[in-house]
Amino acid sequence: MGLKLTVAYDGTRYAGWQVQKNGYTVQEAMMRAGKNLFPGPFTITGASRTDAGVHALGQVALLEAETSIPAERIPFAFNRFLPPDIVVQRGEPVEEGFHPRYTPHFKTYSYQIHNAPVPLPQNRRYAHHMQKALDVERMAGAAGRWVGTHDFKAFCSAKAKNKEDTVRTVYAATVKSQGNLLEFQVTGNGFLYNMVRIMAGTLLEVGTGAMAPEAMDGILISRDRDKAGPTAPAHGLTLVEIVYAPYPQDKESKDER
Amino acid sequence: MGLKLTVAYDGTRYAGWQVQKNGYTVQEAMMRAGKNLFPGPFTITGASRTDAGVHALGQVALLEAETSIPAERIPFAFNRFLPPDIVVQRGEPVEEGFHPRYTPHFKTYSYQIHNAPVPLPQNRRYAHHMQKALDVERMAGAAGRWVGTHDFKAFCSAKAKNKEDTVRTVYAATVKSQGNLLEFQVTGNGFLYNMVRIMAGTLLEVGTGAMAPEAMDGILISRDRDKAGPTAPAHGLTLVEIVYAPYPQDKESKDER
Repeated sequence: MGLKLTVAYDGTRYAGWQVQKNGYTVQEAMMRAGKNLFPGPFTITGASRTDAGVHALGQVALLEAETSIPAERIPFAFNRFLPPDIVVQRGEPVEEGFHPRYTPHFKTYSYQIHNAPVPLPQNRRYAHHMQKALDVERMAGAAGRWVGTHDFKAFCSAKAKNKEDTVRTVYAATVKSQGNLLEFQVTGNGFLYNMVRIMAGTLLEVGTGAMAPEAMDGILISRDRDKAGPTAPAHGLTLVEIVYAPYPQDKESKDER
Repeated sequence: MGLKLTVAYDGTRYAGWQVQKNGYTVQEAMMRAGKNLFPGPFTITGASRTDAGVHALGQVALLEAETSIPAERIPFAFNRFLPPDIVVQRGEPVEEGFHPRYTPHFKTYSYQIHNAPVPLPQNRRYAHHMQKALDVERMAGAAGRWVGTHDFKAFCSAKAKNKEDTVRTVYAATVKSQGNLLEFQVTGNGFLYNMVRIMAGTLLEVGTGAMAPEAMDGILISRDRDKAGPTAPAHGLTLVEIVYAPYPQDKESKDER
């Protein structure tokens, strides 16, 4: 049986999603919980390999297991055995052949910035604190220049495999503020290693005035990681949702205007 | 020198504000930080003795110390020596005779409820999770019945000193929802021991249909703690602000309509 799980987590304590040698991961916690539910072999395959410290509201994972637990009870079954910082939100049957990474989809990430002279304890887990005043309009202008199909190599960690295709389509990229909380939201058909955090770090440079919004065009063309801003800290980043459908055409044309 | 400090904290790790025998408190953490700043004796007096696990955005404390640090640098000085879950937001000089508890003021508390079938890790620290569906309109109706000057003995912990005057004025009491996050906000000239948490627990009973909004009038008259609902968990509660001024009359009459 294949089940699509939607998983939310506070990534603070975890070395990212994917099982790895160093550190405990969200996937491992999920596997450990699953062992209490399924007597036979099972697999859990995530859609996004979120980095250490990155959060999720809507990570998607494919659960393949032999079980008599009905799909709608699967979240409750998992949550009994999961720590409070990982919660399965939904369980849905999927069509044969569904794969969280290869079935066409679009994803939305959010990067939060708390822009104030002193930090606020209540914001410290999910927003990056920035003391220096940021200009939201400038940041929004820069983000808008990423919309479209571009080679994002300049916004990809230099540690990434060199032969990877670095062309991606960004459908929407916005920066909005509510009080002193700023949110950069970006939707695309896929993201390179550290891409959203490098975008966020670049937006911080634009917001303080160190970089011009118009400079984004040249950075994209350069394909040079050193031209973009620094990689912003992981804890500001949240994987918001993954939708397995084409990006709505009317929405796309509206966002790109 | 007397300085009014505005302090925000995540109360999760603390046994409340006030220094006490059992457990580490926010006031103790403040005193420990102060010892790094002031060579001589100093005192820190809080406005509200928040319970264990209760949070604050705007706790007020009077700092009395001999220091050459200017008022506007005091937050940065304290924050260097405070853990990240306690942050001094502002430092302001106050008039001779100011006392955080006795100078006339009004306070606002917020109680947050996450109303959804499964919890969300990102809400777990500052909102009480409630699985059963709540009717926000009913809850708002009940809260509105507390506005005015009443004897709130029924909404006071039975553990409180018996001789205390239990008459308080509630200026505003609202329940609003944003998605599945519900917020009960209450402003008054003072609150009895556990008063806001008992109000929140009572609203949960009203929200599920177990109690009628109209029942609030009889509960107030009864002065009987057992007639009100249970005490809601501490972690949903946040002390939002304390204002040292009379409650604005025009606002009051508008809120009471």
